[in-house]
Amino acid sequence: MPASSIVRRPRYGTRSFALRVRDAVDDFSGRSPSRFAIIIFAILVVLFTMVLSLPAASASGRGTGLADSLFTAVSVICVTGLSTVDMATHWSVFGEVVIYIGVQIGAIGVLTLASLLGLIVSRRLGLRSRLLAAGEADPSRTHAGVAGSSQAVRLGEVGGLLATVAVSALVIELGLAVLLFPRMLIDGLAPGSAALQSLYYSAMAFTNTGFSPNAEGLTPYASDYYFLGILMLGVFLGSIGFPVIYALSRALRTPGRQRWSLHVKLTLLTSATLLGVGAVLYFALEFSNPATFGPMGVGEKAFQSLFLSTMTRSGGFATIPIDQLNGSSMLVTDMLMFIGGGSASTAGGIKVTTIAILFLAAFAEARGNDSMEAFGRRIPADILRLAVSVVLWGATTVAVSTIVILQISHAALDAVLFDVISAFGTSGLSTGLTASLPDAGVYVMAATMFMGRIGTVTFAAALALRQRRQLYKHPEERPIVG
Amino acid sequence: MPASSIVRRPRYGTRSFALRVRDAVDDFSGRSPSRFAIIIFAILVVLFTMVLSLPAASASGRGTGLADSLFTAVSVICVTGLSTVDMATHWSVFGEVVIYIGVQIGAIGVLTLASLLGLIVSRRLGLRSRLLAAGEADPSRTHAGVAGSSQAVRLGEVGGLLATVAVSALVIELGLAVLLFPRMLIDGLAPGSAALQSLYYSAMAFTNTGFSPNAEGLTPYASDYYFLGILMLGVFLGSIGFPVIYALSRALRTPGRQRWSLHVKLTLLTSATLLGVGAVLYFALEFSNPATFGPMGVGEKAFQSLFLSTMTRSGGFATIPIDQLNGSSMLVTDMLMFIGGGSASTAGGIKVTTIAILFLAAFAEARGNDSMEAFGRRIPADILRLAVSVVLWGATTVAVSTIVILQISHAALDAVLFDVISAFGTSGLSTGLTASLPDAGVYVMAATMFMGRIGTVTFAAALALRQRRQLYKHPEERPIVG
Ligand SMILES: [K+]
Ligand SMILES: [K+]
Repeated sequence: MPASSIVRRPRYGTRSFALRVRDAVDDFSGRSPSRFAIIIFAILVVLFTMVLSLPAASASGRGTGLADSLFTAVSVICVTGLSTVDMATHWSVFGEVVIYIGVQIGAIGVLTLASLLGLIVSRRLGLRSRLLAAGEADPSRTHAGVAGSSQAVRLGEVGGLLATVAVSALVIELGLAVLLFPRMLIDGLAPGSAALQSLYYSAMAFTNTGFSPNAEGLTPYASDYYFLGILMLGVFLGSIGFPVIYALSRALRTPGRQRWSLHVKLTLLTSATLLGVGAVLYFALEFSNPATFGPMGVGEKAFQSLFLSTMTRSGGFATIPIDQLNGSSMLVTDMLMFIGGGSASTAGGIKVTTIAILFLAAFAEARGNDSMEAFGRRIPADILRLAVSVVLWGATTVAVSTIVILQISHAALDAVLFDVISAFGTSGLSTGLTASLPDAGVYVMAATMFMGRIGTVTFAAALALRQRRQLYKHPEERPIVG
Repeated sequence: MPASSIVRRPRYGTRSFALRVRDAVDDFSGRSPSRFAIIIFAILVVLFTMVLSLPAASASGRGTGLADSLFTAVSVICVTGLSTVDMATHWSVFGEVVIYIGVQIGAIGVLTLASLLGLIVSRRLGLRSRLLAAGEADPSRTHAGVAGSSQAVRLGEVGGLLATVAVSALVIELGLAVLLFPRMLIDGLAPGSAALQSLYYSAMAFTNTGFSPNAEGLTPYASDYYFLGILMLGVFLGSIGFPVIYALSRALRTPGRQRWSLHVKLTLLTSATLLGVGAVLYFALEFSNPATFGPMGVGEKAFQSLFLSTMTRSGGFATIPIDQLNGSSMLVTDMLMFIGGGSASTAGGIKVTTIAILFLAAFAEARGNDSMEAFGRRIPADILRLAVSVVLWGATTVAVSTIVILQISHAALDAVLFDVISAFGTSGLSTGLTASLPDAGVYVMAATMFMGRIGTVTFAAALALRQRRQLYKHPEERPIVG
C-alpha cells in the first residue's frame, strides 16, 4: 500500500462530517460506483415502500400490503408506471404527493446517476469528458484537489451535476405545464385544479412514468391532438437523455457554434428511425382492427400510430386498450420497449445507441470495413463488446422473468412477454396482466423493474470501468452505451 | 485488368466441357460462392416441388397443390421436418422414396456447402485450412493448378469434400440402422420392413429432419429407451457439424495424437451446456404438467427431458404433445431452437459457436480483458462482428416472419413464435399451427425455412469473405461462426 494513501485518508479519526461525505463520494467514484448507486436506489425503494404502506397513504385509510406497496415504490422510483392497484383511486392525497415526489426523485436520480457514471467512465478511459460538452470541462478542476486522483469525481462536481439535472428537469416540466394549463382551463377545470393537473401530467410525461391522475386515464383526451402532442414532446425530451438535452439547450443558446457529438447524432438518428418505423408498422398492422384504430379516419390513425410509437420509448401513456392490439403490434411494441430510449435518460431498455452499435457492426461487416463508422467517425471496436454484454444482460433478464411469470401465472405468452418487457424497459404499458398476478409474480415483476432501471445503467458502467488495458492509437469518439 | 487474367481464361472459345465446369467451380469459389449456393438449393426446391406435385407422388393419386408441394419440398431439402400434410398417409411409396432421397441430398448438400464455404473463408483470410484437420491439407494442391489463384477451391477438392461428407453420412446412417434393426425385429416387424424402417429412422435422425414413417409417429416407442437413445445419438451426430465429426473420427482412428481445434472444443462444450441446461429446465418446468411429464416416474422424466432437449438442437422428433407444454417450456424451446446446432451441420439456427462468441465477449468485458479467450486461445475481435451480424439476421428473419404470420393467422403468440422459430431453426417441432395455416402463411413459412437453412450459412460466409483488409499480428485461432 503506498504511503500517500495512508497519509491522505485517515479512515478513523476526528474528521468533520463534510470530510466523511467527501470520502464517501470518493468511494463512489473510485472503487465501486455501480454498487454505491444500487444501494442508494435500494434505500429509496425501502423508504418509499414504508411510507406507501402507511394507512395515511391509502384512500381507504387501511394501509397497503407489502406486495402492493413495494411494487408501487419500485414502479415510482424506477419511473416505470406499472401498477397492481388502481393508481387513481387507491391512494390518498398524501399518497399521491408521495408518488409525485418519488417520481421526481427517481427521474432526477437516475439522470444524475447515469450522467455521473458516464463521466467516470469517460475519465477512467482517459478520454476528454464528452458527456458534457467540451467547453464545460474545467481542466483545473480535473487535476487539482486534495482528496484523490485526477480520475475521481469530486463532491462539488456531483452537486453541480445534480443541480444542472434538477434545474433542467424543472425548467422542462414547468414549460410543459405552462403549455398544458390553458387546455385544462378550456376543459372546465378550476384554475388551482388545472395547475395541479398540468404539473402532474408534465411530470409524468417528462419522467416517462405514465401514471394518470384521473380514474379514466387518458380517455377524455384521446382525440385531443394539442394535449397528446405536449405529452409526446415531454416523453420525447425525457427519453432522449440528459447529454442530448444538454447539447440541444446549448445549441439553442449559442446557435451555429455547436459541434454535435457522435453520441447526440447517433441517439437522435436512431430515436427518429425507431419512432418512424414503429408508427408505420402500427398504422399498417392496426389499420382495420375494430378495437383500436379501425373506426378512426386516416389522419387520426396516423397521429395515434405516432403517439403509440412515442410511448413505447418508455412513456407509458395509452389512448387505446393495449390488450386489444393485434398480436403482431404487441410484438412490435415488445421490441421497441426492449430497445427503450437514450442513454442517461428517464427511459429504460437497452438504449438506442446499444442497438445502433449492433447494426453499425453488421454494416461494417457487410461492407468489409475494418472498423465501425458513423457520421465520419471511427467507433472503437471494444464498444461492440459492451453493447453485446448489455443486450445479453437484457435478454437474459427478460427471458428468466418471462419463464418464471409464465410458470407462476400460466397466462398467455403475448401478455406475459409484453408486461415483462414493459417492466424491464420501464415502459409501463400493460395488457392488464400485472394487476392480476399473485404476490409471487408481483415480486418478480418488481425485481424486473429494478434490474431494468438500475441494473442496466450500472451494469454498463461497471463493465466499462474494467477496461483498464485499452489502448487508443487513433483519434476516436465514444458514444455511450447502455 | 492484368494481362495474365486475360490469357488465363479465354471466356468464349472451343473449350471442353470439363474446362467449363472447372471455370464454373472457380466462379463458385472466386466471386460469389454464396449466390451460387443459393441458386443450387433453389433449383433443388423447384425440382422437388415439381416431382412432389405429380399425381404419382400422392397416395390418393390426385396430385398435390402448389402450397403443399412447395412447402414439403422446402421442408425436405432444408431437412426441417415441418409439414402441412400428414407425412405418413399423404404420400405414395414413390413420394416417400422421393422424400427420402431429398432429405439425403439436402443434408449432404448443406454439409458440403457449409464445409466448402468454411474452407473458402479460411483460405481467403490467409489462414491454414482449419476446417479439415491440418494433416489433411496438401500444400502442393493449394499452390499448384492452372486455373486460378491459390485461394480458389478446385473441382477435385469439391468432389473430394462431397465424397468425404457423403461417405461419412452413409457410414453413420448405416451404423445407426444396424443398431435399430434388432429393435424393429423384436417389435415384430418382418425383416424387410424392419430394415426399411431402420434406414428411414436413421436417415431422419442423422439428417435432423424428424419425419416419422408411421402414422402414430414416435408414440409406439415413447418409453423405449434403447430406440430413443439411438435417435438421440443420430440427432446429436448430425447436429454437431461435419468439422467436429471429422475430428472425432480422426481421434478414433489415431487415438492420443489428436490436437483438438478451438472450434471443436467450443462446439462440444456449448452443445453439452445447452443440452444440460435444456434438460434441467424441462425437468423442472414440466415436472407436474399432467399432459406431459406429470404421470411419469422421476427417472423417465429425466430421460424425456434430455430427449426433448436433444431434439431442440434440431432433431424434431417428439414423444409428447408439443402444444401441451407449459408456456415456460415452449419459450425455453424457442430459445434453444433459435440457437440450433453446430456449424456445417444438418442442424439449423444461428449455431452454437455464434452464441458462444457472444458470451465470450461478455466474459472478456466483465473481466476487463482486451480480447476474447477460450481454451488458452485468443479469438480475433472481428469474429464478434460476424456473430452479431448472424444474430441480427436471425432475429430479423424471425421477427418479420412472426409479425406476418400473426397478422395472417391471428393465432396466439406462443404457437406462432414456436412454429416460426422451428422453421427458421429447421427444428420441425410444431404446435400444429403450421398445418392449419392458409396458403399465404404456408408460403411465408416456406420462405422462413429456406432463409434459416440456406440463408444463415451463406450469409455468414458472404460477410466473412468481405473482410479483405483484416491483418493478423498475433497467432490466433478462428472458430467457425454461423
Ligand atoms: K414509463
Ligand atoms: K428438423
